[in-house]
Amino acid sequence: MEEKHAAVWKEFSDFLERENAVRTALTLFDWDNETLAPEAAAERTAGAYGVLSALYQELFVSGSLDGLLAKTKALEGLSPVERALVGRVEKERNRLLSIPKEEYRRFSELTAVSVQKWSLAKKQNDFAAFAPVLEEILNMRKRFASYRAKEGQSLYDVLLSDYEEDFTEGKLDVFFAELKKGLLPLVREVSRRQKEHPVTCDFLFQSYDVEKQRHWNKWLAAYLGFQFSKGVLAESEHPFTTSLHKDDVRITTHYYKNNLESAIFSTIHEAGHGIFEQGNDEEVTQTLLGGGTCGVHESQSRFYENMLGRSFAFWEPVYGRLQKTFPEQLGEIPPEAFVRAINRSQPGLIRTESDELTYCLHIMIRYELEKRLMNGELSVGELSGEWNRLYEAYLGVVPKTAGEGGLQDIHWAMGEFGYFPSYALGNAMAAQLYVHMNRERNLEELLRAGELDWISGYLREHIHRFGASKGMEELLTEITGEKLNPGYYIEYLKKKYL
Amino acid sequence: MEEKHAAVWKEFSDFLERENAVRTALTLFDWDNETLAPEAAAERTAGAYGVLSALYQELFVSGSLDGLLAKTKALEGLSPVERALVGRVEKERNRLLSIPKEEYRRFSELTAVSVQKWSLAKKQNDFAAFAPVLEEILNMRKRFASYRAKEGQSLYDVLLSDYEEDFTEGKLDVFFAELKKGLLPLVREVSRRQKEHPVTCDFLFQSYDVEKQRHWNKWLAAYLGFQFSKGVLAESEHPFTTSLHKDDVRITTHYYKNNLESAIFSTIHEAGHGIFEQGNDEEVTQTLLGGGTCGVHESQSRFYENMLGRSFAFWEPVYGRLQKTFPEQLGEIPPEAFVRAINRSQPGLIRTESDELTYCLHIMIRYELEKRLMNGELSVGELSGEWNRLYEAYLGVVPKTAGEGGLQDIHWAMGEFGYFPSYALGNAMAAQLYVHMNRERNLEELLRAGELDWISGYLREHIHRFGASKGMEELLTEITGEKLNPGYYIEYLKKKYL
Repeated sequence: MEEKHAAVWKEFSDFLERENAVRTALTLFDWDNETLAPEAAAERTAGAYGVLSALYQELFVSGSLDGLLAKTKALEGLSPVERALVGRVEKERNRLLSIPKEEYRRFSELTAVSVQKWSLAKKQNDFAAFAPVLEEILNMRKRFASYRAKEGQSLYDVLLSDYEEDFTEGKLDVFFAELKKGLLPLVREVSRRQKEHPVTCDFLFQSYDVEKQRHWNKWLAAYLGFQFSKGVLAESEHPFTTSLHKDDVRITTHYYKNNLESAIFSTIHEAGHGIFEQGNDEEVTQTLLGGGTCGVHESQSRFYENMLGRSFAFWEPVYGRLQKTFPEQLGEIPPEAFVRAINRSQPGLIRTESDELTYCLHIMIRYELEKRLMNGELSVGELSGEWNRLYEAYLGVVPKTAGEGGLQDIHWAMGEFGYFPSYALGNAMAAQLYVHMNRERNLEELLRAGELDWISGYLREHIHRFGASKGMEELLTEITGEKLNPGYYIEYLKKKYL
Repeated sequence: MEEKHAAVWKEFSDFLERENAVRTALTLFDWDNETLAPEAAAERTAGAYGVLSALYQELFVSGSLDGLLAKTKALEGLSPVERALVGRVEKERNRLLSIPKEEYRRFSELTAVSVQKWSLAKKQNDFAAFAPVLEEILNMRKRFASYRAKEGQSLYDVLLSDYEEDFTEGKLDVFFAELKKGLLPLVREVSRRQKEHPVTCDFLFQSYDVEKQRHWNKWLAAYLGFQFSKGVLAESEHPFTTSLHKDDVRITTHYYKNNLESAIFSTIHEAGHGIFEQGNDEEVTQTLLGGGTCGVHESQSRFYENMLGRSFAFWEPVYGRLQKTFPEQLGEIPPEAFVRAINRSQPGLIRTESDELTYCLHIMIRYELEKRLMNGELSVGELSGEWNRLYEAYLGVVPKTAGEGGLQDIHWAMGEFGYFPSYALGNAMAAQLYVHMNRERNLEELLRAGELDWISGYLREHIHRFGASKGMEELLTEITGEKLNPGYYIEYLKKKYL
């Protein structure tokens, strides 16, 4: 780099350092809020969080960034990641610039307490108690989206672009229609068969000592490749992953005394996310390109959870250890029965407890609802009714309580409208990857031998290291030679379940 | 308030909000670093921490604060707390203004990793491995102090003024001389008697299930008055207290399988700190006056730990519960034997494990050493030798390892020179309070009846609510009618131990 270039890049790096420091602090507050902070803390902490968010916004909207971005964009010889980073900063600046300061702070404060309010309303199955908060969040989200909607762009499309640059409403409509066409008959057929020959799974719901579950799940995460020298496995009501940077990645799970399965698959899922973030390159960690884009991120968690974690081959070298930990409950259960149980399919009401086959139907329902909420075709007052109607139509079940219905997920309470599609995209990407990787090595053989290193090495090499510097379509094209194709996912499910 | 006044105060409040947000984030990083962050995280996180510290400094040194402070100081009709707050902000500004930006950031980064390095060196008993880090910290501390030392003020005096405005080196020399005169002969006499009639305490060091200890200590903290809706009890290598604000106060303890006593007295000690912070008034929390000044803070933890927690009356209503939790270990041990055991006195090497009687001798040693280090009369290379010499002189014991010697405490590794005297001041204040409060109510009667409410109410009313807006001398004068008088402490110990 020439001297002048070096000076510009240095100035840009200084900016990056500052935005990273404030953003990392906000991440730590979020983590703490979900895992540890005491009940009464929320309101005061939200005040500090709001001010810190405002500080974050100020960094981006200051006039000096304007000129700096122009100079940086004009630099020659930037690496692809550097160029992606400059683009990402500009996008974030445009987003933050479009929102009036006071509104941005108000929104940050609101979402810092809304999760707690939602959690309480959910516990009490009281949709009406949360409705005004949801209304306010929704309205602010709509207003923020309207500030930067381009000619002819729907409000929902604006939000989608924050999560998935590759997928617009139009593209997702096609994607979900294809999924629906493939999945609905398949779900009905599998459901019919399993009713005739029900799968035994009651042994998963005996009493399992929580302390023993803790030890087992910690071991499991490490077995999968999650590095504890650079990470933490904690507990929270709703399992999630976050990170301060590649050397400090935090995943959570949730233990239930009468459910062995729940913690295990939460751990595997979040470990998939965590391994991704630990595999980030030096160049992307501690920048806005750290982690990965949403759908790609979900592809990794679902890949670990389903393609690996629900396969018989995965459990072959591992199940004996689980039996030894819980000899009373599993001593008499052969591995075949265990794997059948964790692969049973049954249309249900709860997304996070749903099986691999019906999962995307839960997403489709949320996709339809949030699209309509955002585009003004559905009101908060009508939400519960529509929720129930769609569950009956797609899954043949009807929620009895608000907790099973419109209050089920944390996302909208956090202000996240537009994230749900990423789950379905991730599922589809995971299947496409799985088929492709199997062409290079026999994954079942590797799993049977307990050799997960090749798998995590492959994913790191082709996906993890890039962080969010490459989108889903770019990655899939580079790896498999074609863009996202949900056909692989439907085929994978057909082969597995029929 | 007149309109012009209101506008100035509003501007000042906006500043306060910002400094509070950044400072709270730094507190959260510190907490996280000590309780949870994975091993490999330190270096990258220290980078973000350094930038955030620099941001904190920027807020204070910006030219605009200068004018704002002048305007605010000129306001009439400020409440005493408001006036104290303005003074505190000015003091912080002067401190931060005196340190060059790059040096301040370097120091923040250094202390964000130095604790880990110290911890490792301590584990390996390798003083030489930590000496260069300690040398750098010491030199920066000396340099920072020199930037604002007034004519004739020693460097150590500058640091003391950060912790205790009421106590200079000269005043402390007198205080410690008085303690030494009273304590040294007393310790020798008690030590001689206890050698003749040793106290049985082996039952405290049997095997105590850690999970049961967790439950018991949580119950104990709540019994003392620590509110879990506004607080957290977690675990860390070195027990400590911190808070984001009065509704989010965090204390830690440390469980050892073969030591029942350690966790209990750490919990009581930290609960004393925690109850203080939870009792802060609305006016002081989330400001630089939150918490309390160091010595007053220590007076509360030591009051709970020793005056209450080691008294027979305290254990009367509580000991049966402890026996029920650990029937095998304590079933045959009467309360009298238990209380005798937790009050045994034995000169030892470790400050945090030392008894009430010898504790201040440990502090005196540190006081002498850090004073000489800071004033250039002792080098890091000579530290271990001097440490050992003083232990032999005061306590009659000589460290065999660096962990027992110069690497024992975390304070210097954190850059905290000048804090140690506060422990001794706190002990003396606690005894003075104890004598005074007993004139109003018979504390032993209250403890025996399990009525701790009057005690915590009294402390909140006279101490906790003021946060750091009043210093030790002011508080003691208001409460007891006289300034700090170590005579009460020596009398208290004589009465208790002879």
